[in-house]
Amino acid sequence: MDKLFGRNAVLEAIKSGNRTINKILISKTAHGSSISEIIKLAKAKGIVINNVPPEKLDKFEQENTQGVVAEVSATNYVELEDLIDTVKNKKNGLLLLLDSIEDPHNLGAIIRNAVCFGVDGVIIPKWRSATINETVERTSAGAVEHIKIARVTNSSQAILKLKDNGFWVLGAENGNNSITDTKIPFPAVLVMGSEGFGIHQKIKEKCDFIITIPQKSTISSLNVSCASAVILYEIFKQISNC
Amino acid sequence: MDKLFGRNAVLEAIKSGNRTINKILISKTAHGSSISEIIKLAKAKGIVINNVPPEKLDKFEQENTQGVVAEVSATNYVELEDLIDTVKNKKNGLLLLLDSIEDPHNLGAIIRNAVCFGVDGVIIPKWRSATINETVERTSAGAVEHIKIARVTNSSQAILKLKDNGFWVLGAENGNNSITDTKIPFPAVLVMGSEGFGIHQKIKEKCDFIITIPQKSTISSLNVSCASAVILYEIFKQISNC
Repeated sequence: MDKLFGRNAVLEAIKSGNRTINKILISKTAHGSSISEIIKLAKAKGIVINNVPPEKLDKFEQENTQGVVAEVSATNYVELEDLIDTVKNKKNGLLLLLDSIEDPHNLGAIIRNAVCFGVDGVIIPKWRSATINETVERTSAGAVEHIKIARVTNSSQAILKLKDNGFWVLGAENGNNSITDTKIPFPAVLVMGSEGFGIHQKIKEKCDFIITIPQKSTISSLNVSCASAVILYEIFKQISNC
Repeated sequence: MDKLFGRNAVLEAIKSGNRTINKILISKTAHGSSISEIIKLAKAKGIVINNVPPEKLDKFEQENTQGVVAEVSATNYVELEDLIDTVKNKKNGLLLLLDSIEDPHNLGAIIRNAVCFGVDGVIIPKWRSATINETVERTSAGAVEHIKIARVTNSSQAILKLKDNGFWVLGAENGNNSITDTKIPFPAVLVMGSEGFGIHQKIKEKCDFIITIPQKSTISSLNVSCASAVILYEIFKQISNC
């Protein structure tokens, strides 16, 4: 069993129904509209709620529980092949491949961006990457519950498989190809590199396009979660003509 | 004296020259191009460097020092009036007012976005807000050293003063006014609200425009640092016609 911490994470897990929820612990001192909603939805779905003294939640050190903890089944990862089959014939199908994002806060924020801008699925490597843990769940504000996530052993091979299935591969990197000048072809997979080192060379070589965010300053570059927000926003704008 | 942790934070502090650097501690086991650059620039500016055993930096618990710590003078805040005087007659002058951003990681990421997209200054409240501490410095990757920051006692009064000086006030909130449909007038101040509660009602009432990021999903909203990246990017695009 995994644990989910925080009001949004628990609320979205109940709503999505993707995971079995064993029970929910709610601090007796926790109040507010989101707590009421959690209780209402959980009761409707027959999920056990335990009202506990606030000290009981203190044992989850370093986690901001916001007075709510849920015991849930482990993350349901999907197979890459299933993701490809679902997305390749979809209109404007878009996947996100995260090449070694190690900070769980960044991973959570990126997944939140992906859900906001309608990405169809996320691919993360099994090694050299944060996995979907409690911090990712909380930082994503529950968005993890609303998107398909595949874990792959080898990112390079995953890209080759995507290419074989007709996906265009876009790499986000500093360079001269402004995203505003690039008409994105679909189905596509957007590759975001790690915080420190960007996209690995072996993967960069497989990209059909390198896209760059135009910015004023050369003294600083965007954090990877903020960069993903801007690029996914720009792609979403292209798709929806807004 | 303050402390700066991490390679980018220390490097940008040396480059900007905005703060007096007392000395820099570098772990004997730290290597790489950014360490070489720190040593080279510090020597050129006559800054004392102490090569220390790595254990000596271990005492800074919970901070990822990346082998580098600098002792520096405290953050040089500017006065709101000076910020207004500098920006009000500038072409496309843009300020950012952060209404109670409490998470230092978010504050650092937002300041990094502001520098990337050419914002002229940042205004933060003295209370109910994270201040510019080591975590903000590190999360901003040193961007804090490259932008003017004013602290104000009362955000509402600061807005009134900005209005008196001809600034347009833009509030970022969920709503129906897509930023893509809004031609931003200048000089302008963009207000971003807190993580949990958005912009305070008293401040929202003073906004000339409410701007919203179009997004696909209604089940989640962007993290405040990602939202600021998207809006500042969109404004930068309007200014630079890119």
